Amino acid sequence: MERVSANLAYGGVQGVYRHASDATGTDMTFSVYVPPHAPGAKLPVVWYLSGLTCTHANVTEKGEFRAACATLGLILVAPDTSPRGEGVPDDPAGAYDFGLGAGFYVDATEEPYAANYRMWSYVTEELPALIAAEFPADMARQSILGHSMGGHGALTIGLSFPDRFRAVSAFAPIVAPGQVPWGEKALTGYLGTDRSGWRRHDAVALIEDGARVPALLVDQGEADGFLKEQLRPELLAIECEKAGIDLTLRMQPGYDHSYYFISTFMADHLRWHAERLG
Amino acid sequence: MERVSANLAYGGVQGVYRHASDATGTDMTFSVYVPPHAPGAKLPVVWYLSGLTCTHANVTEKGEFRAACATLGLILVAPDTSPRGEGVPDDPAGAYDFGLGAGFYVDATEEPYAANYRMWSYVTEELPALIAAEFPADMARQSILGHSMGGHGALTIGLSFPDRFRAVSAFAPIVAPGQVPWGEKALTGYLGTDRSGWRRHDAVALIEDGARVPALLVDQGEADGFLKEQLRPELLAIECEKAGIDLTLRMQPGYDHSYYFISTFMADHLRWHAERLG
Repeated sequence: MERVSANLAYGGVQGVYRHASDATGTDMTFSVYVPPHAPGAKLPVVWYLSGLTCTHANVTEKGEFRAACATLGLILVAPDTSPRGEGVPDDPAGAYDFGLGAGFYVDATEEPYAANYRMWSYVTEELPALIAAEFPADMARQSILGHSMGGHGALTIGLSFPDRFRAVSAFAPIVAPGQVPWGEKALTGYLGTDRSGWRRHDAVALIEDGARVPALLVDQGEADGFLKEQLRPELLAIECEKAGIDLTLRMQPGYDHSYYFISTFMADHLRWHAERLG
Repeated sequence: MERVSANLAYGGVQGVYRHASDATGTDMTFSVYVPPHAPGAKLPVVWYLSGLTCTHANVTEKGEFRAACATLGLILVAPDTSPRGEGVPDDPAGAYDFGLGAGFYVDATEEPYAANYRMWSYVTEELPALIAAEFPADMARQSILGHSMGGHGALTIGLSFPDRFRAVSAFAPIVAPGQVPWGEKALTGYLGTDRSGWRRHDAVALIEDGARVPALLVDQGEADGFLKEQLRPELLAIECEKAGIDLTLRMQPGYDHSYYFISTFMADHLRWHAERLG
């Protein structure tokens, strides 16, 4: 692992790192904020998964999470959203919603994506092992959140590893990729046309199939241009109601899909995570 | 004035605006954050001047000022750092420290810069009139801060208009441009070789020549690579001591010149401003 940069911030260190990933077969870049802490202390780890077109940099620069992480004593890890580099296949038309910057947190089975697009394995296996080895991380206390496509990632990963993540939350998540255009395109492209294989990468379908977490927190802007066609939080609300999952879905009047929305509610989410991380 | 964008954030509106400037003879872009407020209320105005290479966007995206502005009820205005556009002359070699992105908050007298590089008039006259006309601004309650070259701007403008600005502060400012390479290059290029004309654009010289403010707050990272050659806060400390100006100069161990440093101490500065803005 190579340190790309390190900047003191709020008494802790905001670092950016690069490593050769076995999962994706590419170099991967990610950021980690380690708050001020006592020597030898191990700190809870919050995973933040980013949305379409983003890298680690968007939340690192615009997420406004460091003040809360420093106060609450939380490490925050922000992975990239896809493999990148020479030879990594992109969307055939160069669209923003598939390929580079749009890995959707799945392990692709379709060619030509299967070799590199293994973001599920990367985020759930390879990167956690690296974080555990290289940072003062208490891996018994993890939580996960994300935005949009990364909200989809946070929900599906959180629902799939209920013993690993003590808190799961999202900003404007894609809750049912199997039922919306972004998700249908991505899951078809990465996983093929057999929709049964999509269900473990669809939060609403996962809950329908029995996945459970005690509670979920979701903030959704009412002025978000993607709300009605791509995000559809009401589908999650219906499924959580049926499943007895304690969903706090906050519709936020006037807020859009941007980091201005995310940063406004970031500290709320981190406090909610901290309460559950102990 | 044209609204380029507007995003709800922390209950207020982060806007970006563009207008045709008489002062610079170009279109100018700036950002304004208006916090949540009662209908009809007029709010204090904090001016933030940015450093070399920056536009309004750097602090708008990375400054982490909105949480504090929302709590404290402060408008924050972030102008650009130079004129831009076709026909605006740049540094002959395209260097980062002169010309575009490096206006140094002076009215140039030297050719070919004199026509467009009128950032002093723009920031002290034209833009304030626009802010007063277009936003819920109480122009009787203004303060100013800035970073690096913008710290230079905040100090020189604050010292020049002591009745206008109730608080003046800076992050890693250029305190004595007449004595450091960045400043010598810029002031020569914009104002010519007669150093007597530089003194009203040099905070240390201004104080030496009798300019006064009640108090100054300066944060300076000790790991800032520009500290010893370009910034030299000790020159300001010596002059404030002589002049009886209450300078709080906080040397911050480990902090660099980046927005990771600025954002860490932004809320501190805004609280200090709010106390003085009433």
